[in-house]
Amino acid sequence: MAQAMTSPRFIALEGPDGSGKTTQAARLVGWLRDLGQEVVACRDPGGTGLGDRLRSILLDRSELTISLRSEMLLYMASRAQLVEEVIQPALTAGKIVVSDRFLLSNVVYQGYAGGLDPEEIWSVGTIATGSLLPGLTLVVDVPPEIALRRTGGARDRIEDRPESYRKQVREGFLNAAKMYPGRIVVVDGSAETEMVASQLQREVSHALGLNSRA
Amino acid sequence: MAQAMTSPRFIALEGPDGSGKTTQAARLVGWLRDLGQEVVACRDPGGTGLGDRLRSILLDRSELTISLRSEMLLYMASRAQLVEEVIQPALTAGKIVVSDRFLLSNVVYQGYAGGLDPEEIWSVGTIATGSLLPGLTLVVDVPPEIALRRTGGARDRIEDRPESYRKQVREGFLNAAKMYPGRIVVVDGSAETEMVASQLQREVSHALGLNSRA
Repeated sequence: MAQAMTSPRFIALEGPDGSGKTTQAARLVGWLRDLGQEVVACRDPGGTGLGDRLRSILLDRSELTISLRSEMLLYMASRAQLVEEVIQPALTAGKIVVSDRFLLSNVVYQGYAGGLDPEEIWSVGTIATGSLLPGLTLVVDVPPEIALRRTGGARDRIEDRPESYRKQVREGFLNAAKMYPGRIVVVDGSAETEMVASQLQREVSHALGLNSRA
Repeated sequence: MAQAMTSPRFIALEGPDGSGKTTQAARLVGWLRDLGQEVVACRDPGGTGLGDRLRSILLDRSELTISLRSEMLLYMASRAQLVEEVIQPALTAGKIVVSDRFLLSNVVYQGYAGGLDPEEIWSVGTIATGSLLPGLTLVVDVPPEIALRRTGGARDRIEDRPESYRKQVREGFLNAAKMYPGRIVVVDGSAETEMVASQLQREVSHALGLNSRA
């Protein structure tokens, strides 16, 4: 993704299901708003009329065969719409955007863990977003067994995968963070919720130059 | 598309709505079968369960806002599935594939005429198809006024566009053919149906090394 521009006020939360990233995204948004910041929260895929249609195709695929490449491209189509309808206008208006998942999820799930070339996914993602990528991506990292326990009975197609797959997902996130230090930052998600929230706030304060005591 | 492989037994028919390409594709398939060839015919978008779902989203978008990039990516997702489910297995089995539209339509409609970078679309398309591109793409070329007349009352979102747009579409097809001589070939679609069919048969015979008198 070397050639893409990044927007410092655009923050993505990433991690496996069961990492707590959705809870943490909501907390982060609340914390930023308490600091007086204008924040737009979104989730990827979804967040637009088209995105919701595609999300339902992706998550309820009982009657459809979807290849790995098609899956990746459906996420990209949803993301392109999200950028144009929601993220770009919010950033242009000077707001902060916090997205629950973004492009890195594709790089990890269909790339590192799925078998597609991660570089190809970065490259399609750069085109899909019109080169608008998060300035900061926070990976909430937890060992696969904790993630699995936390998702409890809510098994979906990801949790139904073997342990080796869940390990590849984790390693994919960690690997990407090593490749893009400062832009993709790993936070220990196995700690208490409060502790994880504090770590995320510290990273965001640093990236945005905020005074977190305000 | 320089780095993509092409398959000589994979033929795409392209051109604006009203060019007669769908009629000609069906004739070409019939002619090849009469010559004893095994042929799989398909249309893009469509041709798979997912493709049909996406086709209906793309063509009946009264309630959905779809950006140019999302539109391009939805076509790509449908195409990725078509390649994996239909085109690749047919080619592997030694059959000829004739597709009514393929990647060039995106390059022309969303690229040359729509404003996205044609090179970016070739590049996403090469990834979407796993580098499987037609060995021969036949463009059925007609002046915009003839295409418009032939579509008659069946006006869709393309025909509702201004004349300047339809001219850009035509120029896009012709421009692409200039860039990839031998791989993208223009045929005069304003002639009689029989004449156009003969020209297409001649091009296909030449590309496949067939004896068209057989």
